[in-house]
Amino acid sequence: MNYKMMAYILGNIMQTEGLLMSTSILLALYQKELDALRAFVITVALLLLLGTLCKRNAPKDKRIYGRDGFVVVALSWIVMSFFGCLPFLLSGAIEGFSNCWFETVSGFTTTGATVLTDIEVLPKSILFWRSCTHWIGGMGILVFVLAIVPLGDERSMHLMRAEAPGPVVSKIVPKIKSTAKILYGIYIALTVLEGLLLFAGGMPLFDSINHAMSTAGTGGFSIKNSSIAAYDNAYFEYVITIFMILFSINFNMFYLLLIRDIKSVLKNEELRYYMVIVGLSTLIITSNIMHLYPTLESAFRHAAFQVATISSTTGFITANYEQWPELSKTILVVLTMLGACGGSTGGGIKVSRFIILLKVSLREIRHIVHPRSVNIIKLDGQRISEETIKGTTGYFITYVLLLLGSVMLISLENYDFTTSITAVITTLGNVGPGLSKVGPVENFGFFSSFAKWVLSMDMLFGRLEIFPMIMLFSPSVWRKGSM
Amino acid sequence: MNYKMMAYILGNIMQTEGLLMSTSILLALYQKELDALRAFVITVALLLLLGTLCKRNAPKDKRIYGRDGFVVVALSWIVMSFFGCLPFLLSGAIEGFSNCWFETVSGFTTTGATVLTDIEVLPKSILFWRSCTHWIGGMGILVFVLAIVPLGDERSMHLMRAEAPGPVVSKIVPKIKSTAKILYGIYIALTVLEGLLLFAGGMPLFDSINHAMSTAGTGGFSIKNSSIAAYDNAYFEYVITIFMILFSINFNMFYLLLIRDIKSVLKNEELRYYMVIVGLSTLIITSNIMHLYPTLESAFRHAAFQVATISSTTGFITANYEQWPELSKTILVVLTMLGACGGSTGGGIKVSRFIILLKVSLREIRHIVHPRSVNIIKLDGQRISEETIKGTTGYFITYVLLLLGSVMLISLENYDFTTSITAVITTLGNVGPGLSKVGPVENFGFFSSFAKWVLSMDMLFGRLEIFPMIMLFSPSVWRKGSM
Repeated sequence: MNYKMMAYILGNIMQTEGLLMSTSILLALYQKELDALRAFVITVALLLLLGTLCKRNAPKDKRIYGRDGFVVVALSWIVMSFFGCLPFLLSGAIEGFSNCWFETVSGFTTTGATVLTDIEVLPKSILFWRSCTHWIGGMGILVFVLAIVPLGDERSMHLMRAEAPGPVVSKIVPKIKSTAKILYGIYIALTVLEGLLLFAGGMPLFDSINHAMSTAGTGGFSIKNSSIAAYDNAYFEYVITIFMILFSINFNMFYLLLIRDIKSVLKNEELRYYMVIVGLSTLIITSNIMHLYPTLESAFRHAAFQVATISSTTGFITANYEQWPELSKTILVVLTMLGACGGSTGGGIKVSRFIILLKVSLREIRHIVHPRSVNIIKLDGQRISEETIKGTTGYFITYVLLLLGSVMLISLENYDFTTSITAVITTLGNVGPGLSKVGPVENFGFFSSFAKWVLSMDMLFGRLEIFPMIMLFSPSVWRKGSM
Repeated sequence: MNYKMMAYILGNIMQTEGLLMSTSILLALYQKELDALRAFVITVALLLLLGTLCKRNAPKDKRIYGRDGFVVVALSWIVMSFFGCLPFLLSGAIEGFSNCWFETVSGFTTTGATVLTDIEVLPKSILFWRSCTHWIGGMGILVFVLAIVPLGDERSMHLMRAEAPGPVVSKIVPKIKSTAKILYGIYIALTVLEGLLLFAGGMPLFDSINHAMSTAGTGGFSIKNSSIAAYDNAYFEYVITIFMILFSINFNMFYLLLIRDIKSVLKNEELRYYMVIVGLSTLIITSNIMHLYPTLESAFRHAAFQVATISSTTGFITANYEQWPELSKTILVVLTMLGACGGSTGGGIKVSRFIILLKVSLREIRHIVHPRSVNIIKLDGQRISEETIKGTTGYFITYVLLLLGSVMLISLENYDFTTSITAVITTLGNVGPGLSKVGPVENFGFFSSFAKWVLSMDMLFGRLEIFPMIMLFSPSVWRKGSM
């Protein structure tokens, strides 16, 4: 384990978080929110100081191995969440460390599950930082660090692989640093575009910025108690629906569009599956809820918004789907597990993994029908290596085991089965709302501290796709001299 | 596809079912149950007649290939269930074909879910046939046919593989026929022993026979409305608990005990895992429900009985666990999915598959820690082939897809999520009771015909471990000249 290099990267992350957080200082100053101001100043000072200390011994050996990459990523997210929750704690905006931790992890992992009953009473600078956590966590802070910090070595691919979602990570351009810059460029451009469209439609500036950041990270924190439903505005709903879908698509697609390689976009299997899943789900739910809404348009709009919010793993709400027929609710629960496309800011199992799993199942059937045939699995016309298939099935099995284990722990709270299982599915998938007591118009405040810690661990497991977190708790990784 | 051979096997199965059913004729005669008598005579006559017709053209080529084996097994179970439900229908004991079909499939697949509200009003000969379906389905009618019919060819192993539960099928002795005979010998001996123990403890003879047959198949049909709780007898409960566990263990273990190879029994990994799972679950649930029962013994007895009934996939009931704390209920739901040992009469995913899946997950973690190490998976100290691993992961993925698809179909009924998901889990696992509206003191009668057909398909998928049923619906299998 290259401890010096680890400290160096953590230092960079703390400094970056400090710089990003300092925007909230300006807002707190402008809004004259003194408690929040003090909290932000203390936290930013701590971050910059500790960050500089960690970076003092710049390592000569800047190599990061696969496994160390996983550990660094997991540690980064825990350190980032710890400092990220200090403003909530020190300003007194959220009571108790468990609540602050839950809210921050929910923010960075872009889950969007909240412990707050009344969001609108919070100081604006605190609300802004809360939305910022989504925006930072969406693309991944390490990708950001990779884009701006001289790591010097192409081996930093290992870092990106550990943080980026999906079964296969590809560089857009040969250089990692350029890839990271392009990704962040697209991310910023789309965020600004959404903010402008909302603002142009009449949403207040502050609201537009916050909701754009929250959409971009596919997070789901709103600054309104009743989420997007508060505006009761069809235009906002359509704009956000479209952008939730955009942010849940593999970002490589946007790059391909920029270089006018439309053929590759159309050929992308994950995108096609995703569009079919979103389209079909919207159609079925629209016809399933039609009788509950005055017009076909409003039924379609609410169906599309809720499908987009769940399958993109955002978690904004415009309708209390708890009161929808069971078929619609079940489809939404399945979409919660499935999640978005790999290489997007969305969470869940990912559509590409689902495609691979589906093809593994079909291969097994073909194998029984024609035992002697050789069955390879293709994605986008290219053969998927047995390595990737093993990784994907291994991930899926571990996901199911983690899910069942977590449901057992949450059932200690003694709430109904639907609450326990959907609370776990929605946090593991970084979505936000579930059913029953964690339904769309509810919050997670009523859970005990124990449950909040379990669920926030699930969010981190979900966001980092399980294995980095397991590495962190694996003794053999920390054994001296091991490699 | 060897159609002649297929007809020959189906003919044998019909004849066998007819002979087994004729015992009910004797009972109906003795009890003077005229409606039932007429129904049994008609069905038995039909079975023997059609069976003889099917066998008329004995094929010269008695080979059965892997894939054809799967198709024959799936067809056999459907034919067997069709004729098995005629007595219920013709005697008027159960109303409507969907209900009769559900009850019979539930019987043969040893699920034990019932559509009946009042079981005790049924004629005794009908009740006896209902328990018989469990006993026949438990060991598998094909194993029975293999034991008594001259198929002449060692390739009949393919048949056994398709019907026998678990990821690996091993012959106890070199000859399939002898293996089948030994299995049935053990099965009969244990059934008789349990019946005698219940009778000796004061249970009426008819009740003892029925409950012994139902335990043996790990079925769960009782002849009492309130299942085993009706007797309120601790001795019965302990006897049945022990026999439910015995029948959910790989039958090879009993053979090993018979030939005094105790070392191999103790070394068996699946058995050890199963004992730990059953033991731990009983301990946790006992401490979780202690406050609900007057004595520690009664809490332990009810915990042990319910753990045994669920993990053996039987489905008898002595306590309304719907009223237990959520932790206990969640553990029971997870045990419902997990199921019993391979090579037993129990259902579910099977403990041995679970062990392999667990090791696949651990292998993936080890692979990340030490990318260059070679990771093989062992069971009972022997290397598991990549073929078996692929088969197991393929099975698991298909199982989850089938589960989610079925839950969506059942959610069309618009009952709560817990009802939909546990109804599917319990039928796929051939257990019987679930939670909420399909809880331990409820029944499946309230579902629509559509849902009953979906759930009875799930029972068949579960009992035959998915793939034979898929083969049946795969067009390429039926294409002319295909092999």
